[in-house]
Amino acid sequence: MDDINEQTGSTGEGGGRRSRGEGRGAAARRASRAGGGPGPSLPYIQRKIPVYEVLDEEGLQLIERNADTILEEIGIEFREDAEALQLWKEAGADVKGERVHFPKGLCRELLKSAPSVFTWHARNPARNVQIGGNATVFAPVYGPPFVRDLEGNRRYATIEDFRNFVKLAYMAPSIHSSGGTVCEPVDVPVNKRHLDMVYSHIKYSDKPFMGSVTAPERAEDTIAMAKLVFGDDFVENNCVTLNLINANSPMVFDETMVGALKVYARHNQACVLSPFILSGAMSPVTVAGTLTQILAEVLAGASFTQLIRKGAPVLFGTFAASISMQSGAPTFGTPEPTLVSYGAAQLARRLGLPFRTGGSLCGSKVPDAQAAHETSNTLNTTLLAGTNFVLHAAGWLEGGLVSSYEKFMIDQDQLGMLQKLAAGVDLSENGQAMDAIREVGPGSHYLGCSHTQANFQTAFYRSVLSDNNSFEQWEIEGQKRMEERANALCRTWLDLYEAPELDPAIDDALLAYIKMRKDSMPDAFT
Amino acid sequence: MDDINEQTGSTGEGGGRRSRGEGRGAAARRASRAGGGPGPSLPYIQRKIPVYEVLDEEGLQLIERNADTILEEIGIEFREDAEALQLWKEAGADVKGERVHFPKGLCRELLKSAPSVFTWHARNPARNVQIGGNATVFAPVYGPPFVRDLEGNRRYATIEDFRNFVKLAYMAPSIHSSGGTVCEPVDVPVNKRHLDMVYSHIKYSDKPFMGSVTAPERAEDTIAMAKLVFGDDFVENNCVTLNLINANSPMVFDETMVGALKVYARHNQACVLSPFILSGAMSPVTVAGTLTQILAEVLAGASFTQLIRKGAPVLFGTFAASISMQSGAPTFGTPEPTLVSYGAAQLARRLGLPFRTGGSLCGSKVPDAQAAHETSNTLNTTLLAGTNFVLHAAGWLEGGLVSSYEKFMIDQDQLGMLQKLAAGVDLSENGQAMDAIREVGPGSHYLGCSHTQANFQTAFYRSVLSDNNSFEQWEIEGQKRMEERANALCRTWLDLYEAPELDPAIDDALLAYIKMRKDSMPDAFT
Repeated sequence: MDDINEQTGSTGEGGGRRSRGEGRGAAARRASRAGGGPGPSLPYIQRKIPVYEVLDEEGLQLIERNADTILEEIGIEFREDAEALQLWKEAGADVKGERVHFPKGLCRELLKSAPSVFTWHARNPARNVQIGGNATVFAPVYGPPFVRDLEGNRRYATIEDFRNFVKLAYMAPSIHSSGGTVCEPVDVPVNKRHLDMVYSHIKYSDKPFMGSVTAPERAEDTIAMAKLVFGDDFVENNCVTLNLINANSPMVFDETMVGALKVYARHNQACVLSPFILSGAMSPVTVAGTLTQILAEVLAGASFTQLIRKGAPVLFGTFAASISMQSGAPTFGTPEPTLVSYGAAQLARRLGLPFRTGGSLCGSKVPDAQAAHETSNTLNTTLLAGTNFVLHAAGWLEGGLVSSYEKFMIDQDQLGMLQKLAAGVDLSENGQAMDAIREVGPGSHYLGCSHTQANFQTAFYRSVLSDNNSFEQWEIEGQKRMEERANALCRTWLDLYEAPELDPAIDDALLAYIKMRKDSMPDAFT
Repeated sequence: MDDINEQTGSTGEGGGRRSRGEGRGAAARRASRAGGGPGPSLPYIQRKIPVYEVLDEEGLQLIERNADTILEEIGIEFREDAEALQLWKEAGADVKGERVHFPKGLCRELLKSAPSVFTWHARNPARNVQIGGNATVFAPVYGPPFVRDLEGNRRYATIEDFRNFVKLAYMAPSIHSSGGTVCEPVDVPVNKRHLDMVYSHIKYSDKPFMGSVTAPERAEDTIAMAKLVFGDDFVENNCVTLNLINANSPMVFDETMVGALKVYARHNQACVLSPFILSGAMSPVTVAGTLTQILAEVLAGASFTQLIRKGAPVLFGTFAASISMQSGAPTFGTPEPTLVSYGAAQLARRLGLPFRTGGSLCGSKVPDAQAAHETSNTLNTTLLAGTNFVLHAAGWLEGGLVSSYEKFMIDQDQLGMLQKLAAGVDLSENGQAMDAIREVGPGSHYLGCSHTQANFQTAFYRSVLSDNNSFEQWEIEGQKRMEERANALCRTWLDLYEAPELDPAIDDALLAYIKMRKDSMPDAFT
């Protein structure tokens, strides 16, 4: 624990050693001590609270039986990938055209070789995280083409924004991964931006990062760059990237996703098999029907990784939202996706696979009460479901079209609360506090008692963005709303940011690789 | 269910019968059909989802043992109430001055006569609610001296505000009780306002309401007015008011609260025994210590109701918040009160008492992201804990100093989501949706399929305040934040409001009683 805090590279108390003698570093340390800095990073969450489950044994078995029926009778399509179809044939599936029908039990049997728990390695070993079991790992938003910037503009994202979100995720104490496409840097050619993205994760953070999945050759580039950092053998024998493989629901895996999956599984890297579900469009309008289809899709896709490489790590992923039956727009944080997430987590545990769902999902255009309600509904569900990997845990706005700086700051504060909640109830003698109750007695107060004095610094989660002052004080300070405070804090953090150390030889090798690859092809913008 | 919808008196489809021939009623029905009205009221929640529990058997027993130690060794004070002390002596307690020490097991033994489940009667029997068991009942905010009005002013509350919040709670589908002091009408003399408050609940709503607890004679007035509505015998034999009795934590019950408790328990009315806890001030800074003290206080206070009248209904209440160790300000929606609420719910179930906690608690001054996060964190906890009675479920702002119209509207929308969530997963054949999955098949979509057509109107909770339109549409519509939409909706509702029928003879009797009582004493303003 101390090691991790020592190596955060944040400008908290523990991070000073990297900035000695530098003017900026010294200023940063002063600012941090004055309260503007993020404080020391926290290790990934090891939940000490129980999981919440909405389905009983009977319900779970019903859904599992129905999923088996889908797999056997309806089948799943693997499109434009002859190798995949051939592998399924060899494994004993009934392949008709691109439609694969799975004999009962085949997928479950294949998945027995997938690990329930594994380590996702960071270039700084103190930042390694556990995926699976009682671990929960938070990662930032993934995918938005737009940002809402600190000047209040909604505009296309750039590589500069990308770097900023990597820096913020690096600094945020309760964000345990650097994530992947924290925003889509549209100012870089489509066929080259993955190089800059992977480089940014390595250069500006030392937390574990995600790989490119938009084409098999981009997945190969990710692997090549990871090998420059971790070494060839290490990459082939350990998970150093998590990779988001969406099913093309309903019941289809397309060429792009299967292509990326094959690259990563072959190199022993983790795939997050995630049906992307807007219930009512990509799945039935009911929770049970949606869960059934999700389970069938994950069984097919996840077991396919084991055909590529036995033992390759794979996650049971679920992206759950609904659509408005009036407008067709996606909706978030509503009761139905909540039930889907709880149920899917149960199904994943029964399969022995680590589970991904949730995040800071919302449909709002601004970080207002709508955004916060939808986000909180989703995040609370995510934690209590026992989710192992949480993509989109901070910064998601407007149905995933926008990465928001302000919302990122608000969300990471909420993640800190969840991390504290996950620690559960301290039942030690100090936790029981009987001495305090005896000392204070009826009619007095606990403000000055010795137990309070001894515990007050760690007793309560301290939000960096909530204003709990008096109305009068809040008025004097300009009647700021939470997102205004988030804006100011974000500017402070970006100002305080200091990069973690990176071996210059590795840095040079990465830059040379990127140059070589960029020079090898013309820019493409579609 | 149909009966209840028929009798909502709301301006939804089912409520038309009360307004035939009236211009306003016809206009209201039109507006309601056009989407501005609240729609039919829902009956109280009967949870079909499991409760979430954070403590295991060992932890629960530890806290129970420690609470017994408090009761026996430290004791609880009943201040300035000779009768209470005498009753405790006669029950076998060791009374020293005002400090009562309870022999092990005494309080639990006394509580065996308290009901685990009972009916809280409304003047409209279709609005009766169950308290206890798998039932959850939402009631509005209680106590604020200020309002944040629809013009954006923060000002002292008036009786007009009081009536408005009663009307809104009456119209809100997922608010099942009219509540109590929905705001403090400071324009009415302190010693007379309870009469106007109780009258407003009876006149402008037909949902079950709470009684006055600020003085024993005001509790008697509540009983007298209830008898004019329900009849003498009915009141003496049924619960028609729920009454909030706060412990003066730590470990004190004061004259006022004990006085009100005695009146209500004698008349068989329900007391909600609620330690009002800001951890760190009124209880230890730890969750386990706070739970221990809460349990001891509830055991003493709740069992005292049984000394007054065996079988009188009583709830295990918990108001859980923390204080900022920097400023001393109360904080809400943070992890520690969440754990307290989950734990207290478990302790209540083990005692066989209905449980009260939670609500839309927040410290924010405005209905922004802070308000929403803190509220959602608290409300989700409240539901999953298995809370039976939820005070402050809508409208709470600024640490309970302010009743907010806008936040009331936002909160009641969230309550609707929780009500849907509580219904759990439909595992019927229709819920399983296998026909839909077969019909659609791989690579298609569910938008037009027959299962979707048959279910789309009820499939998903439809928020009345979330904007899920495109960014462009939202921009055209004025870039409104959620609270702006809430403001508009609140105005619409107040405009659409129609009072439920009240027997004119009862109305006259109530008004005569109020006049008699008001004339009997000079105005008091403190």
